[in-house]
Parts: sequence; C-alpha cells; structure tokens
Amino acid sequence: MTGAGRPRLSTKKRPGDTAREEILDASAELFTTRGFTNTSTRVIADAVGLRQASLYHHFATKDDILDALLSGTVDAPLAVAQRIRDSGADASTQMYALAYFDAGQLAASTWNLGALYLLPELRSERFETFRDHRYTLMSLYAAIASDTLDQLDSERRSGTEDLPFRLVETVVNARADRENGRRDPTADAAGIAEAALRVLGWTGDVTALHRSAETLLEAVVGIVEDRRSLHST
Amino acid sequence: MTGAGRPRLSTKKRPGDTAREEILDASAELFTTRGFTNTSTRVIADAVGLRQASLYHHFATKDDILDALLSGTVDAPLAVAQRIRDSGADASTQMYALAYFDAGQLAASTWNLGALYLLPELRSERFETFRDHRYTLMSLYAAIASDTLDQLDSERRSGTEDLPFRLVETVVNARADRENGRRDPTADAAGIAEAALRVLGWTGDVTALHRSAETLLEAVVGIVEDRRSLHST
Repeated sequence: MTGAGRPRLSTKKRPGDTAREEILDASAELFTTRGFTNTSTRVIADAVGLRQASLYHHFATKDDILDALLSGTVDAPLAVAQRIRDSGADASTQMYALAYFDAGQLAASTWNLGALYLLPELRSERFETFRDHRYTLMSLYAAIASDTLDQLDSERRSGTEDLPFRLVETVVNARADRENGRRDPTADAAGIAEAALRVLGWTGDVTALHRSAETLLEAVVGIVEDRRSLHST
Repeated sequence: MTGAGRPRLSTKKRPGDTAREEILDASAELFTTRGFTNTSTRVIADAVGLRQASLYHHFATKDDILDALLSGTVDAPLAVAQRIRDSGADASTQMYALAYFDAGQLAASTWNLGALYLLPELRSERFETFRDHRYTLMSLYAAIASDTLDQLDSERRSGTEDLPFRLVETVVNARADRENGRRDPTADAAGIAEAALRVLGWTGDVTALHRSAETLLEAVVGIVEDRRSLHST
C-alpha cells in the first residue's frame, strides 16, 4: 500500500469539495441506509473512489467518521443555542428560535443522521465528547424551557423542560418513516417550534412569535435566509 | 445436531415461562445493548442455554425474533387504540387515554425495544407487516388527534395530527439517554399524555382529564391498575 499521498483512483464520485467531505457524505449514506455495523471502511473507500490507505489518511477508524458525522448534527445548534441564551430576548422567543433552527437543520440535512443516535456503539468512551455536547445542548434547551415556564407562570411538572428538545428530535423519526413509505403529513420546523411552546403551556399569537424569533435568529446568526427557504419548502 | 426436540442444555437462565419467552428476552437485551447486526443466533442460544438447533425450532431466523419483539411493542397499543376509538368517549379523553397507555407501556417494558425502530434492516419486505401495524397505529393516533382539533376548534396546521404519536415515541429516546448516564428529569406517561393534548391547542384541567381517561381505560381494558402503578413510580 503506498498510502496517504496517493492520487485519487478515479474522478469525483460524491458531493463535497474535498476528499474528507466526500468520505463523510458517502459514510452518511451508507450508515443510514445499510447500517453502521454493515458498512466497512473498504465499502466506504469504494464508494468514494479512494484506496483504503488514503481513507485512513483522513480518518484513522470508522468510529472517527461516525463521530465527525454526529458532532456535525450537534455543534451548529449548540453554538446557536448558546448565543440565543445570551441574547437577552424574552424566553418564549428564545425557545421558539432554538427549536425552529434545530428542527430546520435536522430536516434539511442530506442524510438523516439523527437515526444513528440510538446506536449501542455510541455508549462507548470513544463517543463521550459527542455525548457531552449533545447533553449540553439538551441542558440549554431545558434552561430556556424553564425560563419560559417562569415567564408564562405555568404549573411546573417534573420533566416538562425536557419536552421541547424531545419534540425537535422527532423530526428524525418523521423523516425515517417518510423514507420508509409513509405518506401522511408531518410537522415542519415551524410546526415543531410552535408545539415546543405549547407543551410549556404557551398560548398566543404564533405569527408574532415566529416573526420575533426570525429577528432573533437574524441577530444571532446570518442564517435567516436559509431558514426561510427551508420553511417555504 | 439432533435438533428441535432436544432437552435444554442447562437450567433456566432468563426470565420467561417458556423457552420462546426466554429467547425473546435474551434477544431483546442483546439487540438493544450490543446491536442487532452484532448479535448472532449462536450468541442468543448461548445466553438462553439452548443449542442453536433448538433455537431454530422456535424461530427460523434472527429476523423472525426481531419481528416478534417489535410486533410486541405495537400490537397491544393498536388493540387499545381501536377500542378507544370505538368507545364514543369525547375526543380529548380518547387522545389522553391512548397516549397515557402507550407511553406507559414503552416506559415499562423490560428492554427499550423502540430503539430498534430506526434500524435500516426494517426497510426490507420481511418487516412489511410490522410496518403496516405501526402505520395503522399512527393513523389511529392521527384520527383521534383530528377529532380533538375539531372538538377544540383549534386552527389546523398541516402535520399537527402527527405530533401526539411522535411525543409518545420520545419515551424511547429519553430512556436511551437515561441508560447512557443522563440524569435530568424526563416526562412520565402522564406528562407525555398532557403534552400530547397541549400540542393540539388544548388548555384545561388536567386532573379531570386524567381521571376521565383512567375511567375510559378501565372500560376498554382491565389495565388501569397497571397504569396506576406505572404512574406512581
């Protein structure tokens, strides 16, 4: 094996600007459609048109690929959640904005990577950093939910703060069922965000809340155009 | 191999009154903790203390075991949902009762089998019957949700009817995270049922709704005592 520096065997087979991105895209497809255990690094290398040795130059193990993919689903919402929490906006606007952003990115990703969250393999120490980041995101959701309950003066029931995060992750299950042939309508990102507020006892004008959340997202990240185009599809 | 009729190799190793139940229990543990692909029928046979040939007498393939386990998570709520729908009770009581029953059984099962719902293996024709039953259950949820929206005169947003079912399935994710070391509180079956109503725009006295749902479940199935003990844990 001549290894890392070797030129590509063939022309570009996958979306992505770099070999690393192509490897991630091919792995995401294979892991979500054939399963993580059923996919070898050899099959991934073949799908990208790389020698296995070149693949190992980018990722030493298959676990490293999985970690990069899963971290990609959590790191953007985590950064956005932290900025939203520091924004000083009112709690219900923060809650809607976070759920709307996160449900939108889970719905719009090329592959339904959230379907891998329940893999038993993720219990190993190798994935501790990913788990920590995901639990930090959950805690930010819970903190914003708790502030929203205070703002609404809703009755507190143990575990209610966990529900907005859980609702957002249902995008993953709805996508999986759609890919599996189910045709009934499912909630879009705005529908999920509205539901995240309702489970906290919120009732009110969702049009006004949606607008203030878009303004907040615009201030927090330059992504409102992406959100809008997502929402309109 | 002398096959099917052969006596057990050892004394009983697993919970269950019959060899079939012990095979199902061991498989549920192995599939949810080590993964479906990572578990061979040989490992299952060893865990139960059976020869592989005897295992094949009960289940011809590993897929048959998975199908029996998954069907077990859907068939009881499906039967209950059909009786609830035919009960003539008011829609919000039906909705609460179904979500409460179903979230309770997902939370109380020995193994977190719902974590297997997103396996790519389930897309094959072998699991068409299971998928059909699960989609029928989803449709019953959606029909009861739609009646509840009518009753509440809530504004209709596409996909809202899908949310009560999705909320109930989040019990699976909350369990998986707890088994993975997360300590924050999560909603119990009653909290999930209340949230299932709130996403439909319901606001009101949850104590009265809980009581009428228990009465309905008592009429529909002789399981209210189980529900109560579930709720109190």
